[in-house]
Amino acid sequence: MSVITLTTDFGSLYPASMKGVILSINPDATIVDISHSVPPTDIRAGAFALYSVVKYFPPGTIHIGVIDPGVGSDRKAIIVKAGDQWFVGPDNGLLIPSARLLGAIEVYEIMEDGLSERISSTFHGRDIFAPAAAYLSNGKDVLEIARKTDDYVGMDFSGYTIEKQFIEATVVYVDDFGNIITNIPGEKILDEIEVGTLLSVSGRQMPFLNTYSGVSKWELVALIGSHGFFEIAVNQGSASRLLHLANGNSIRIGMSRS
Amino acid sequence: MSVITLTTDFGSLYPASMKGVILSINPDATIVDISHSVPPTDIRAGAFALYSVVKYFPPGTIHIGVIDPGVGSDRKAIIVKAGDQWFVGPDNGLLIPSARLLGAIEVYEIMEDGLSERISSTFHGRDIFAPAAAYLSNGKDVLEIARKTDDYVGMDFSGYTIEKQFIEATVVYVDDFGNIITNIPGEKILDEIEVGTLLSVSGRQMPFLNTYSGVSKWELVALIGSHGFFEIAVNQGSASRLLHLANGNSIRIGMSRS
Amino acid sequence: MSVITLTTDFGSLYPASMKGVILSINPDATIVDISHSVPPTDIRAGAFALYSVVKYFPPGTIHIGVIDPGVGSDRKAIIVKAGDQWFVGPDNGLLIPSARLLGAIEVYEIMEDGLSERISSTFHGRDIFAPAAAYLSNGKDVLEIARKTDDYVGMDFSGYTIEKQFIEATVVYVDDFGNIITNIPGEKILDEIEVGTLLSVSGRQMPFLNTYSGVSKWELVALIGSHGFFEIAVNQGSASRLLHLANGNSIRIGMSRS
Repeated sequence: MSVITLTTDFGSLYPASMKGVILSINPDATIVDISHSVPPTDIRAGAFALYSVVKYFPPGTIHIGVIDPGVGSDRKAIIVKAGDQWFVGPDNGLLIPSARLLGAIEVYEIMEDGLSERISSTFHGRDIFAPAAAYLSNGKDVLEIARKTDDYVGMDFSGYTIEKQFIEATVVYVDDFGNIITNIPGEKILDEIEVGTLLSVSGRQMPFLNTYSGVSKWELVALIGSHGFFEIAVNQGSASRLLHLANGNSIRIGMSRS
Repeated sequence: MSVITLTTDFGSLYPASMKGVILSINPDATIVDISHSVPPTDIRAGAFALYSVVKYFPPGTIHIGVIDPGVGSDRKAIIVKAGDQWFVGPDNGLLIPSARLLGAIEVYEIMEDGLSERISSTFHGRDIFAPAAAYLSNGKDVLEIARKTDDYVGMDFSGYTIEKQFIEATVVYVDDFGNIITNIPGEKILDEIEVGTLLSVSGRQMPFLNTYSGVSKWELVALIGSHGFFEIAVNQGSASRLLHLANGNSIRIGMSRS
Repeated sequence: MSVITLTTDFGSLYPASMKGVILSINPDATIVDISHSVPPTDIRAGAFALYSVVKYFPPGTIHIGVIDPGVGSDRKAIIVKAGDQWFVGPDNGLLIPSARLLGAIEVYEIMEDGLSERISSTFHGRDIFAPAAAYLSNGKDVLEIARKTDDYVGMDFSGYTIEKQFIEATVVYVDDFGNIITNIPGEKILDEIEVGTLLSVSGRQMPFLNTYSGVSKWELVALIGSHGFFEIAVNQGSASRLLHLANGNSIRIGMSRS
């Protein structure tokens, strides 16, 4: 058994040929879709999607990520090892936050020869990343298909400010409920503000609580989401629609502290 | 082999961490998505989604359902056994119609200790229901993780009226074709009206037939859907859009009988 | 191990009962979703979806296709064998282009008796195609459930014109990026026009290139897509929205040649 996950912005259809390639090389692979509805070409949102789930996967899991606006250009294809897990995808930062979350990372540049009969210039998910992951899952040594490198594109979710009167952050993901997930780790917030504190965004007030159901239906609430980041939600509604905030937007949160 | 199904209102992303948890505990589980696009917090629609498919699953299947607006409150987490299948989810009625469909039911309250390293207040699907289902699928005795109870929240799809001149019912699910599924079991309709009868909704007429293709393209038709319930559809179109009816709406159907 | 794929216009929910039926008959089947969001009743789009992926699947794969507006009428249910793969679905042309792509085809008419306890008139995906595919995957001889026929509905993606000054084609699929996929095979285009040629659609110009990233963000580009067909795209945007073109539309492409 080995688990191979897929995180892409492909929507339907294209992931299936990746699965065909994987099962042709390793018929026993267990394939898990993480998301195929990452907003198109939004590398940061894709990085967050993967980041939010990797620690729940078993040792040996191989994660393929394909948010790849540079496909066909000269960006590298990489494999990253961290903890007991592997990551395969383009060298554009997508895989790095997830890998770092699991520990020290090793980065390898994929040597494309021999992975596919023919490598298209438009679909490396199918022609490079899927076969590379499938060969790894079959037990092939990483050095047979890639060489170690120290030269890769990084990414982190930093870039927020917590001041006395306000917080400035970035919206890193809007989930399918419309919950607004920021780039502030939960523990950083908990160092600074207490449960029960009243916050405000765009003139609207909301309490900082532990659960969605701590406010009435359709009321705003701020909390640490299950992904571990600071989040603004509407109980049984969409905070994204209410506050007009989307992936990549800046958000300024006011607070009154004693 | 054991099959574990998932029915949620999570959209993309969150189901993946449930799958990671399941595969970490039982690497041989076969995971099947029933739906992750149940309308958010619509417990009745989720109950119907599960209800429409359970009888097609093999003995031993474990169904996880997470439409859970009360997560983090004091609602219980339960396991239900019925026929040869299991159901795991919140105690809000979601699991009950499906279980009852399979026969007499036994309900157990999950003891949360020991299921996860840390139980969040926002994502019991990942921290309680997924591990509970995975341990059951590994052969753990239900009494090791839960205790029997008679105290649980029920649900049924009743509440319709069939009179001489009209039917009153509730829309229990609008599927992705826009077909309007009511809460009236097919056999109850067949006791009362014959195939060929002319019905009307909101002043629009439609025949009660056996198949969608019995009317022309874009025409209304009433039938017993493949789920076994009375349904109103538009051949190759959306009845929900045409009639402005959505989940939870009341529907009044006129009929002329001899 | 045997792989069974599903291509439907069902959206969520209904595919799950097909999976339950398959796993009840063959617990070891590996089920792969190709797409469940084929535009409703669009047989040509479904045929293309399947066509674009079949050659990446391993020998022995069984593909179930259900775009089936004629369900419940007297259209036949068929099994098609081609290369080392199998196709199961309605006799409406859906399966034929994919099968032909793999080589010579053999067509069998399914004998419906004995496949299910009860065959509904609305859901042959669950009651006929899923069990037929599962029995095949279990090693049952095709002649136990079907008989050979030469009478079936065909389909091809032909019907385009390449002239000196213009190309006329049909939009066969709009993918989830909004890329407009035409019915012209890549090799036919490459016989006629060179990479770098300037093309025009509806008064808008675009170069014919190898990759999306060969033009700036939000610029139009024409290329051979990873599916092997001539395609018009917007780098990091939606060509379908920009050009107002959808499945089934005609498209006229101007070109200036030396």
